[in-house]
Amino acid sequence: MQRERSAASAPGGALHELETPALVLDLHRMERNIARLRDRLAGFGVALRPHLKTAKSVDVARRLYPDAPGPITVSTLAEAEYFAGHGFSDITYAVGLAPGKAARALRLRGQGIDLKVVLDTVDQARALAAGGAALGVTPAALIEIDSDGHRGGLVPGDPAIGEVAAALRAGGVTLAGVLTHAGESYGLRTPQALAEAAEGERAAAVAAAEQLRALSHACPVVSVGSTPTAHFARNLDGVTEVRAGVYVFFDLVMHGIGVCGLDDIAASVLATVIGRKPEKGWILVDAGWMALSRDRGTASQAVDQRYGLVCDLEGRPYPDLLVAEASQEHGILAIRAGSGERLPDLPIGARVRILPNHACATAAQHEAYHVVRGASPDVAARWPRMRGW
Amino acid sequence: MQRERSAASAPGGALHELETPALVLDLHRMERNIARLRDRLAGFGVALRPHLKTAKSVDVARRLYPDAPGPITVSTLAEAEYFAGHGFSDITYAVGLAPGKAARALRLRGQGIDLKVVLDTVDQARALAAGGAALGVTPAALIEIDSDGHRGGLVPGDPAIGEVAAALRAGGVTLAGVLTHAGESYGLRTPQALAEAAEGERAAAVAAAEQLRALSHACPVVSVGSTPTAHFARNLDGVTEVRAGVYVFFDLVMHGIGVCGLDDIAASVLATVIGRKPEKGWILVDAGWMALSRDRGTASQAVDQRYGLVCDLEGRPYPDLLVAEASQEHGILAIRAGSGERLPDLPIGARVRILPNHACATAAQHEAYHVVRGASPDVAARWPRMRGW
Repeated sequence: MQRERSAASAPGGALHELETPALVLDLHRMERNIARLRDRLAGFGVALRPHLKTAKSVDVARRLYPDAPGPITVSTLAEAEYFAGHGFSDITYAVGLAPGKAARALRLRGQGIDLKVVLDTVDQARALAAGGAALGVTPAALIEIDSDGHRGGLVPGDPAIGEVAAALRAGGVTLAGVLTHAGESYGLRTPQALAEAAEGERAAAVAAAEQLRALSHACPVVSVGSTPTAHFARNLDGVTEVRAGVYVFFDLVMHGIGVCGLDDIAASVLATVIGRKPEKGWILVDAGWMALSRDRGTASQAVDQRYGLVCDLEGRPYPDLLVAEASQEHGILAIRAGSGERLPDLPIGARVRILPNHACATAAQHEAYHVVRGASPDVAARWPRMRGW
Repeated sequence: MQRERSAASAPGGALHELETPALVLDLHRMERNIARLRDRLAGFGVALRPHLKTAKSVDVARRLYPDAPGPITVSTLAEAEYFAGHGFSDITYAVGLAPGKAARALRLRGQGIDLKVVLDTVDQARALAAGGAALGVTPAALIEIDSDGHRGGLVPGDPAIGEVAAALRAGGVTLAGVLTHAGESYGLRTPQALAEAAEGERAAAVAAAEQLRALSHACPVVSVGSTPTAHFARNLDGVTEVRAGVYVFFDLVMHGIGVCGLDDIAASVLATVIGRKPEKGWILVDAGWMALSRDRGTASQAVDQRYGLVCDLEGRPYPDLLVAEASQEHGILAIRAGSGERLPDLPIGARVRILPNHACATAAQHEAYHVVRGASPDVAARWPRMRGW
């Protein structure tokens, strides 16, 4: 497949010149985050398959893999096609397969992309097999395992695991292995609880793999992962690969869980002050939910960061200054309730950077990253994002 | 200005053939919503200036105005430029002006677009005046009035209103009038309370206009509006125009306020069943928060619709079937807590349509509308949306 050039460009300019609101990415922080998990998992001898649903950018992907082909994880077929078009060929599409999407997924396989799909029912297995037969390609599938009751998948020991595997075999589909995701780990916040969640994820995946092997299926891949469990797992015996996504940027939810520090958060939204209501303790900025997203992931955590934590242009937080409310294109900055801090003196036209609750959701509101390096105000590059399905 | 053709196209096909998730727009419902408010305000003899931040589509705008030039309202300069490029020339940019955006706004004025900006400080007035002088164009501004403490603006009677007007006059800026928005009306739910909110909005705008006229400023425009107050105002004396946006599509928040029926909601998200957990009462679909948005506007209403109300392909709600939880590309359908309804029998591959909490936020997650007419499954057109700033 042709390796295309991305549309990344070096715009020059600086943070005080960009149109606002704008998505800013600190390359130094991102590279540190990438190295941290890469080095951690290398210590376990386990492969890392980053989930690119957070970044949706080939320029970010190249910081993970200067040379394709992966392995990577994606959340949509549009992502699979986009990254395949940029030279990535080892791709897991980690959302349960809608039968109507089988043909589109298999066209990528027909182009030489090792695209593995995920499923947990005999109906999906049969649809995939039929699609493979129609297109003359051999599909590859992972069976989704439910390790914590969070979402989809089959519980280890459920005879349906064997039934799905049998349907795959009968239909000429390669059973690549098993995959699970400890989604409940996002609700935890102590190292001990996170280590236990990681062990639960590992144990479920390994048990399902053993169940399949006992039925004489090979099950080469045992795939687990979430950003919290990937950073707190103490034992990965039997696991062949770990998936994680948001760790590349981190965010306030991950900080609330205890996975990162505030100064690890690489994505922020640049905004300009457009109004002041000192009698109410408010500063208005031109970043509302359209720029920040409606994600309020910290609302259920010990520290609620409202719509985001406000920093200066160099990325240093103002103490307890939050985006307290958001409408479509307005954010209202205010000091956290109960705090003794005072509203900083930010005049009309001043600029701030806002750390997001959830980097996946906030980044999705933007067309591109404006890349800076640490505290430097210079915008080194503009990296476009893809979107859609 | 050249009137461009939009990229709207007639894709053929039907709802059961579209890639999912997809944004669906019922043209019959939308046209009914448009006619309802148009006819209501015509009865008052007041102009309507629709807010196109919801639709962000020239094809929708043409259903409001088969012939440009407006009047319209926008929330970003990118919207102003987009609609100006499609022949709209009477545009109010209804977000407080960042000083750094003055030059970009004024370039549109230099192209013959009657773009009016909104401000409430002397600093903004001076930045606008300086921009006008630099570009050799006469800016036009509306002073933002605070009618309910919701966000920005000056309270009627505040001497700052006269000071801003004086700064505009001194700088050679045309004072077009005053503008207010009763944002607190979204928290109400009785006709009486909404009528009172509308009266408060009217009274504040008229009082501010009278304050300016007493200072010998002309103040020709008295602009009020929100979808709830526009539909419940009983008196618009002194008002010259009403702004409203989400009424074109309506949504579950507006239904919860009492502004529309469920069968008025014109925007929905098409999704496919990808999993089932009958033991938990769950059905999994391929529409998560990326397709629905993270907006949970009904969470603070009497009836919490979680991430949306689930309908069949013809747009009829399944009783009490909600998108109970959402991750990036997964939605979990479940019966509303406490309901006696039973989970419908939706097999893998079945399709549903999900009514959104907040149409502005949900539509923003999509590239285009797939247009249907009432219960017909035929997709009559694909209307692209614009985005960004």
